[in-house]
Amino acid sequence: MKKTVNIHEVGPRDGFQNLKEYIPLEEKIEIIDRIIATGIKHIQITSLVSPKAIPQMKDAREVAEQCLKKYPDIDLYVLIPNLYGAKSAYEIGIKKVSNVISLSQSHNKANINRTHEESLDELKKIKENYPSLEVIVDVATTFGCPFEGKFSIDQILNFIKRLYQLGIRTFNLCDTVGVANPDQTKDIIKAVKEVFVDCNFQAHFHDTRNNGIVNSIAAIECGIYDIQTTLGGLGGCPFAPGASGNTATEDLAYLLNDMGYSTGIDIKELIVLSKYQYSKIAGNYSGHQLYIK
Amino acid sequence: MKKTVNIHEVGPRDGFQNLKEYIPLEEKIEIIDRIIATGIKHIQITSLVSPKAIPQMKDAREVAEQCLKKYPDIDLYVLIPNLYGAKSAYEIGIKKVSNVISLSQSHNKANINRTHEESLDELKKIKENYPSLEVIVDVATTFGCPFEGKFSIDQILNFIKRLYQLGIRTFNLCDTVGVANPDQTKDIIKAVKEVFVDCNFQAHFHDTRNNGIVNSIAAIECGIYDIQTTLGGLGGCPFAPGASGNTATEDLAYLLNDMGYSTGIDIKELIVLSKYQYSKIAGNYSGHQLYIK
Repeated sequence: MKKTVNIHEVGPRDGFQNLKEYIPLEEKIEIIDRIIATGIKHIQITSLVSPKAIPQMKDAREVAEQCLKKYPDIDLYVLIPNLYGAKSAYEIGIKKVSNVISLSQSHNKANINRTHEESLDELKKIKENYPSLEVIVDVATTFGCPFEGKFSIDQILNFIKRLYQLGIRTFNLCDTVGVANPDQTKDIIKAVKEVFVDCNFQAHFHDTRNNGIVNSIAAIECGIYDIQTTLGGLGGCPFAPGASGNTATEDLAYLLNDMGYSTGIDIKELIVLSKYQYSKIAGNYSGHQLYIK
Repeated sequence: MKKTVNIHEVGPRDGFQNLKEYIPLEEKIEIIDRIIATGIKHIQITSLVSPKAIPQMKDAREVAEQCLKKYPDIDLYVLIPNLYGAKSAYEIGIKKVSNVISLSQSHNKANINRTHEESLDELKKIKENYPSLEVIVDVATTFGCPFEGKFSIDQILNFIKRLYQLGIRTFNLCDTVGVANPDQTKDIIKAVKEVFVDCNFQAHFHDTRNNGIVNSIAAIECGIYDIQTTLGGLGGCPFAPGASGNTATEDLAYLLNDMGYSTGIDIKELIVLSKYQYSKIAGNYSGHQLYIK
């Protein structure tokens, strides 16, 4: 009997935020409904970010409120960029949030306009003000940065240690621009799991160079059982040159099901849903080229 | 020091054969010239097939003659479907040919309209009539068939044994419809390498479900150092429902270079060439969706 892999659908956040035209609230909810109907139990449903920064997310509060009400038993979480986002999450009643900090100082500055010190200081405030919130840190550019290249294992461990000291126990290791390779993935994951034995690690690989699947499988082989993907490979990072597309949920789910892992996902329904989503957003997308099988 | 991986560019055969509009001879030659200029040393340059079956290949003889003359030191080979193709190859002076036989009886029938017995009989004639030709057998549907599903290790071993008994010593294991997974890939490769110790194995993974890279890496990890790919992921199989696209040469070359393997390929030039090829054939292609980075 093989292990369970939890596929985390993050398209409603990381995918939708890259769409130019606004997707109506009811369409977002319908897609989330249908994601859950395929058997997916972990979803990053939105981003509690300023609508000035990302207009697509202007309905973030409504999305979160409706979903929390409808699906109390599903692992729903949101991205928060700052203390204000944490406050909104707390008010809505969300239990779990993701906060993005980049291992790369220059990408952190480009992405969220903060130094490491400013990001860590904000994270500290979030933890102090909302101690009941479970905060996952998305460690952006763990596997490499468009400005700074790849980091050493020591640089990665030292950065995670700073987050650990603020009380973070779940880390989502992100290949923000799709430069990871499977040997590197294994080296990094083995090192962080060895040092931070009481922590949970997740992974998120962009598929810029068609390497999202091979790196996701490498991560799973090293004992990471929570992998973020997006339906249709939707996504990218508007503030990282060259970033495009995520690992597609249907590709990873197909492969894992075929390998005998337990994902709980109905792959046929998932592909129907991916095509449906594609029909709704085609032409409204500048990231990775979507494909329909 | 990591091992050398020989990337075999098979786009001029497996890619071009899927294009509806005829690519002029001089354009084919230019693309082959530029493939060689990137450092690729192994190319399947054409298919000596009836122009009635595949009109795109009506210039196969000219392609082969020109390339052989220009590049005596490059590993150039052609696909031959039958004894007649072997005769043409022999006359042109080609030293190495690929002959496709499908592990799946029903795919073999659909693809080349022969039973296994008829294919093996034809192969026997090729070996007898042209003993100086090195014949590689492309074992189509090794990893699964759209009609028959997946095969057991024993079925695979038994089929390869029949080819071995005809004198074949190089086998190209093909995932014709992109259904392989990396665990299966490793199991199959370990088994065939253990049984056929005096043989060479190559691999060719279609990227139908974005699994071409993960399976290519799995094959390399099991000691297969000859992998077939196509520039831009061009390709498919016109006689296998659902087959689309190959593993893209630039994706595999990028990853292997990044992992420290020696490929001898200039990745920047390769990407320039992929874009050039795309500009020449865009809109003339019904397979895998091409992408440009």
